[in-house]
Amino acid sequence: MIKRYVMTPGPTPISEEVLQEHARPLMHHRSPEFSRIFVETTTKLKKLFKTENDLFILTSSGTGAMEAAVTNPFSRGDRVLVANTGNFGERFKKMCGRFGLDLIALDYEWGDAVDPEDIRKALDRDPEIKGVMVQFSETSTGVLNNIEAIGNIVKGYKAILIVDAISGLAASDMRTDEWNLDIVIGGSQKALSAPTGAAFITVSPKAWEMIEKSDMPRFYFDLLAARSYAGKTPPQTPWTPGISIIVAINKALDMLIEEGFEKVYQRHRALALATQRAVGKLGLELLVKNEKNRGFSVTSIKIPEGIDGKELTKTMRVKYGVTVAGGQGKLTGKIFRIGHLGYVGMFDVLTAIAALEMSLKDLGYIFEAGAGVAEAQKAFMENNYLNE
Amino acid sequence: MIKRYVMTPGPTPISEEVLQEHARPLMHHRSPEFSRIFVETTTKLKKLFKTENDLFILTSSGTGAMEAAVTNPFSRGDRVLVANTGNFGERFKKMCGRFGLDLIALDYEWGDAVDPEDIRKALDRDPEIKGVMVQFSETSTGVLNNIEAIGNIVKGYKAILIVDAISGLAASDMRTDEWNLDIVIGGSQKALSAPTGAAFITVSPKAWEMIEKSDMPRFYFDLLAARSYAGKTPPQTPWTPGISIIVAINKALDMLIEEGFEKVYQRHRALALATQRAVGKLGLELLVKNEKNRGFSVTSIKIPEGIDGKELTKTMRVKYGVTVAGGQGKLTGKIFRIGHLGYVGMFDVLTAIAALEMSLKDLGYIFEAGAGVAEAQKAFMENNYLNE
Repeated sequence: MIKRYVMTPGPTPISEEVLQEHARPLMHHRSPEFSRIFVETTTKLKKLFKTENDLFILTSSGTGAMEAAVTNPFSRGDRVLVANTGNFGERFKKMCGRFGLDLIALDYEWGDAVDPEDIRKALDRDPEIKGVMVQFSETSTGVLNNIEAIGNIVKGYKAILIVDAISGLAASDMRTDEWNLDIVIGGSQKALSAPTGAAFITVSPKAWEMIEKSDMPRFYFDLLAARSYAGKTPPQTPWTPGISIIVAINKALDMLIEEGFEKVYQRHRALALATQRAVGKLGLELLVKNEKNRGFSVTSIKIPEGIDGKELTKTMRVKYGVTVAGGQGKLTGKIFRIGHLGYVGMFDVLTAIAALEMSLKDLGYIFEAGAGVAEAQKAFMENNYLNE
Repeated sequence: MIKRYVMTPGPTPISEEVLQEHARPLMHHRSPEFSRIFVETTTKLKKLFKTENDLFILTSSGTGAMEAAVTNPFSRGDRVLVANTGNFGERFKKMCGRFGLDLIALDYEWGDAVDPEDIRKALDRDPEIKGVMVQFSETSTGVLNNIEAIGNIVKGYKAILIVDAISGLAASDMRTDEWNLDIVIGGSQKALSAPTGAAFITVSPKAWEMIEKSDMPRFYFDLLAARSYAGKTPPQTPWTPGISIIVAINKALDMLIEEGFEKVYQRHRALALATQRAVGKLGLELLVKNEKNRGFSVTSIKIPEGIDGKELTKTMRVKYGVTVAGGQGKLTGKIFRIGHLGYVGMFDVLTAIAALEMSLKDLGYIFEAGAGVAEAQKAFMENNYLNE
């Protein structure tokens, strides 16, 4: 037996309670029984997003929700600004190109965060910009962008602000309405810790105005169809939804609500800080240099010189049963990423650090064995979120 | 306690074995462990589709696969022919309109099947037609179109044939390669009896040629991306897939393979014929008049005069725990539909007929009580697929 642990930035570990809900016999998606759960889930998600805007559950991965965010508000040729801090910023850029938008990109070094003032300057320079797209947590680097500041800037312009909060949602405080975020997207398989296969999207009145005027071809991800079906009696989805996923999400939300959102953020912060301190103690370098840009969902660590990155993550997975993520895009082979979001506690971080130490040792890296594990534990003892 | 039965044309009942697989802890979608299951599932699906063409699993409902079928092979302005026999034919038409295709529609009465010769005439009249779209089983009426004949015709033209086999797949024999079907789509929640949230699409070499030339904007449903990721080592999906759904589909396929596809078709045929005989005995009229056009997935029954259709299905569901489907589109309120596909056996049909009889009695319909149930049982005893 080799006991397995998933410590990636998605999918994340799922609690036994949520898995059991996931395995309930399926209700029919047009039945009042399912509609009740669908409405409940939507209502709880709005609490998590801190919004009174419309919110829709899409049956797709997060990329589908990104497509919905790009194809609904704009028309062909519309000018948009992508503030790009990594692989998912690149994905926004690719998508905008694919759908014929007139793209302006603010490209940052991977590992750096957006400077909100750059967005102000871009909007001042070009009043034709109709939308700004940015990641909250950029999953490929672990950077957490200052969405509050960006929201405060964009609200003064005609552009809408589109935020990919897929890996940041529920790991860090995010306030859709207070921060003036027009479209926010999230996913089921990140800090929410439900199965993969569903995504979320919120729409502000300012965004609806644009959506109603858009002539971009779309069907499956058409939010006007989603709004029309959500308004039916009983409320429903336009196409057959992932019924067992929504039921699982509903349960996962109950668990987050029971823990309390503030506690959930504290837990993620504690897990991230302990991970950072532990890998530092092993002499490893973090990708995100500026401490205040580091998010709490995932920690990106540079592969030390002389070590084969692929071999490292493979050893952790195959020999020790701990799955972490490699680098994406241009960081492939240069970093690895420990996910500590979702149904994850202190001892999961100890497990990941222990497997990392053992694998580093196997590969000939020189360090003080046990130093990382001890440092993580010390971090937890000093910053015990359970007692906060 | 009220014991519940889902007898709709999707979602269909899921076996305990499949639900248990569905509830397994999630593997990471980029791990070799998941890749193995992903490849296994794809291979088994190809057997079910009877194809050596490429086959992809999409994380969406069947409508997403319809969108993939419409947006991948064509370019804006391309002429296409939709042979429309019901609500899902209408959906193809709407989609073609939305994506700027030049649509020619062959509209049939709802309840009638496509006359394949009409397609030959249309193709002869207009050699510019690049694609023909048609439903195998039209879920809204229960008609089964003669796809073999249509395939034999379309293969002689430059047009590709796109078949929506969502509710027909695994209930009736369908031979993608032998019948020359270029793009075939299926869904997880029909006769396969796995959870909702995944769809399938096959692509022939003739279709690939068109896909490679298409300039239609698309991203999430881009089959070139799907092909490129399926070709990686290890094979994977471009975006995060519905991991727990694919695991469940893999198990559901094992069960169909163990039963044997021929036996599966015989079972569906026996269930459909028994349902037809039973409702006939109750004096109810079938929507599909021509016996040879009736499919084996779902039986559409006209609401008898003087009975409120909504009240009938509501009584069956609320009082007796049996969920059947109402009519869709222009048949809303005029018919109801008993689904008998997927993880369904003889006694489920008896259950549905019994609940129907009891509900009809509650609503004042005059008939010989027990006649339907007895007739269904007689049908099973005469045509016992278990002994065939």
